[in-house]
Amino acid sequence: MPYIEINMTAGATKEQKEKLIEGITDLMVNILDKNPASTQVVIKELTAENWGIAGRSVKRLRAEGKTANISKA
Amino acid sequence: MPYIEINMTAGATKEQKEKLIEGITDLMVNILDKNPASTQVVIKELTAENWGIAGRSVKRLRAEGKTANISKA
Amino acid sequence: MPYIEINMTAGATKEQKEKLIEGITDLMVNILDKNPASTQVVIKELTAENWGIAGRSVKRLRAEGKTANISKA
Amino acid sequence: MPYIEINMTAGATKEQKEKLIEGITDLMVNILDKNPASTQVVIKELTAENWGIAGRSVKRLRAEGKTANISKA
Amino acid sequence: MPYIEINMTAGATKEQKEKLIEGITDLMVNILDKNPASTQVVIKELTAENWGIAGRSVKRLRAEGKTANISKA
Amino acid sequence: MPYIEINMTAGATKEQKEKLIEGITDLMVNILDKNPASTQVVIKELTAENWGIAGRSVKRLRAEGKTANISKA
Repeated sequence: MPYIEINMTAGATKEQKEKLIEGITDLMVNILDKNPASTQVVIKELTAENWGIAGRSVKRLRAEGKTANISKA
Repeated sequence: MPYIEINMTAGATKEQKEKLIEGITDLMVNILDKNPASTQVVIKELTAENWGIAGRSVKRLRAEGKTANISKA
Repeated sequence: MPYIEINMTAGATKEQKEKLIEGITDLMVNILDKNPASTQVVIKELTAENWGIAGRSVKRLRAEGKTANISKA
Repeated sequence: MPYIEINMTAGATKEQKEKLIEGITDLMVNILDKNPASTQVVIKELTAENWGIAGRSVKRLRAEGKTANISKA
Repeated sequence: MPYIEINMTAGATKEQKEKLIEGITDLMVNILDKNPASTQVVIKELTAENWGIAGRSVKRLRAEGKTANISKA
Repeated sequence: MPYIEINMTAGATKEQKEKLIEGITDLMVNILDKNPASTQVVIKELTAENWGIAGRSVKRLRAEGKTANISKA
């Protein structure tokens, strides 16, 4: 029954996405005894232009070389 | 005033989307007496790679021929 | 597989909620041929203080007798 | 810590998006004393076909010349 | 930077919630090399009356003894 | 037409919420020429137990006196 939504900037590979889906589902099963068949994990990817942090888009932060201070990705 | 968000894998036609928007708005009006002019229905479509169920992406489930067990679509 | 989220101000009865869940699920099945067993409909209720429209909370609009212009509910 | 999600139809320019991110972050800092470094503003853009209001998609409303009554954009 | 939202019916203990937050954050760090300091995991709990699956609320499914078929929780 | 959702830990006063709703609506009108009557701003408040950052709940971070490093609130 749980529905987990991951919001992040685009860039993950297919393999990384599979690992995320599998890993989060395992957590729901192991920690909460949820049924994996009804556990949904959804990935919403956003462009760097559409994600803002500290008052600026990640696109602008990257252009200014400042993302390292805020997030590795 | 209500805001309804539909999350699903991509693939619906324009006609199907219009029917969904109309049908859900009618439900809000008929069941809850909501004002249709302020009822919003938004459709968020995700790729099969970004939707996980039962610990795997729908993309992978489809490749393995297993989606039928979980969902027709 | 679809996940539908209804956001609205609190106030619906249990019967109205059941009708919404049933009605929206039927639409997903009839229009998109989705599997009802994997169709989830979630209702998120907000207080009138936490829902803003036209720059004011619904709580304030109601106190000013102005909600009728914007929404019946 | 706050996470603000803007949902709207596509069409804003990069400059407008930067202003939105900056403006909303400033509000969180000035009104609530939030730390800007942990304030995130995310913009989710939808096609006119995927946004419904008053029972019809914005795409259809625009084709019928009716969006002016409902929204300038 | 990632923002992960868990939607589920209420009932998890504080300890389970801590484990979920820690576990999902670890996945974001290990799989995607995300910065833990900017990874947010939010838990939205819903009542059984507000969560619908297969056209009925979980509340009603539980009363009818049918949740076992759909989800352990 | 825009729908803006603010997610944050609980604690804002009614006056602060009104300012947020008004301020964000003004931004949508001034920057994007949106119609205020169809601009909705919704506030979702979460408990400190349900908001995680850096792998721990805000509740736990506060108990350990560490929130100052991550967020003023």
